[in-house]
Amino acid sequence: MIEGSGIVDAVLLAPHSNDFLTERREQLSFGFEGIPGDRHFGYTKKAGGRDAHYPRGTEIRNSRQWSAVCPAELSRIASRMEIAHLEPEWIGANLLISGISRLSMLPPFSHLRFIRNGEEVAVLVVSEQNMPCKFPDRLIQRFSPTVPGMGFAKAGMGLRGLVGWVDRPGVICVGDNVKVEVPVVPPDLQAMRG
Amino acid sequence: MIEGSGIVDAVLLAPHSNDFLTERREQLSFGFEGIPGDRHFGYTKKAGGRDAHYPRGTEIRNSRQWSAVCPAELSRIASRMEIAHLEPEWIGANLLISGISRLSMLPPFSHLRFIRNGEEVAVLVVSEQNMPCKFPDRLIQRFSPTVPGMGFAKAGMGLRGLVGWVDRPGVICVGDNVKVEVPVVPPDLQAMRG
Repeated sequence: MIEGSGIVDAVLLAPHSNDFLTERREQLSFGFEGIPGDRHFGYTKKAGGRDAHYPRGTEIRNSRQWSAVCPAELSRIASRMEIAHLEPEWIGANLLISGISRLSMLPPFSHLRFIRNGEEVAVLVVSEQNMPCKFPDRLIQRFSPTVPGMGFAKAGMGLRGLVGWVDRPGVICVGDNVKVEVPVVPPDLQAMRG
Repeated sequence: MIEGSGIVDAVLLAPHSNDFLTERREQLSFGFEGIPGDRHFGYTKKAGGRDAHYPRGTEIRNSRQWSAVCPAELSRIASRMEIAHLEPEWIGANLLISGISRLSMLPPFSHLRFIRNGEEVAVLVVSEQNMPCKFPDRLIQRFSPTVPGMGFAKAGMGLRGLVGWVDRPGVICVGDNVKVEVPVVPPDLQAMRG
């Protein structure tokens, strides 16, 4: 079931271990462990503040190998924060994808299929919507020419994009097409018919 | 957000490479790659008929390391098939969990937390509802004392349980408690308020 399609406007790497600031690249490699050279690379990860299920530091499967945002939602966050614009770099995004309406609302297990010249080059799967936190405020205040009137944690709620894992490895480039497939839950015929 | 709780009635291993028939154990080890000794063990897998997104044989991340069913749904399938009972072994289940209403309808990214003596011993995450296929018919016909009046692929629709991955490794035993947490999608406040 195809839910929509978009285009890759930017691919970005978080090369610093002490900072989530990302930097634009022409293309980015995605492997089973995530993006080589990125701070979120790994088959497993240490549970952090977002992983409310676990004590901090517990080793768990890494379902947050990448993050993606879309320009329309970044604009809405910027508007709410009363700043001129919000760059994906400032909030550590790995992918900027345009053309998919309400990207943040794609449900868990949605498949993002990346297509170039008619061929599938990689597939990413959504684990969950990304929750905004307060940490980007520092970078936004450093880089934004305008002073925020609202914090990112509040302004970004429901608009902060997606995180997920690499299902089929490959290289994703600026300009690639993105096909979205949302999971199909079979109709609960038995519940209806008894 | 806790959605419910259940209990582990059985843990089962699929030890044969040429057959999905499972066998009961007292306890089962779950690692980051799945269940050691089980035919679905692995960090990655070859895409099969269920992985409609991919050409058969494509190497993809393994999000089907385990499968779980519940007694109430097995009873409903048996009733629809007009057989006396349906055992989890015959359909290759790794876990039989009772007490969770409509187990099959838990959405992707639901967390199943296994608890023993008040301590969390392992966490499994749901990737998707399991779709029934025709292959169990052969085993059901071999083991069931009554002759099925309907095929499993039709009778099991919406009732066939869940598949997923291991998020936090550990040993799961018969009698462990199971706490279910479904993913929270933040309210789409921005969409409502413009």
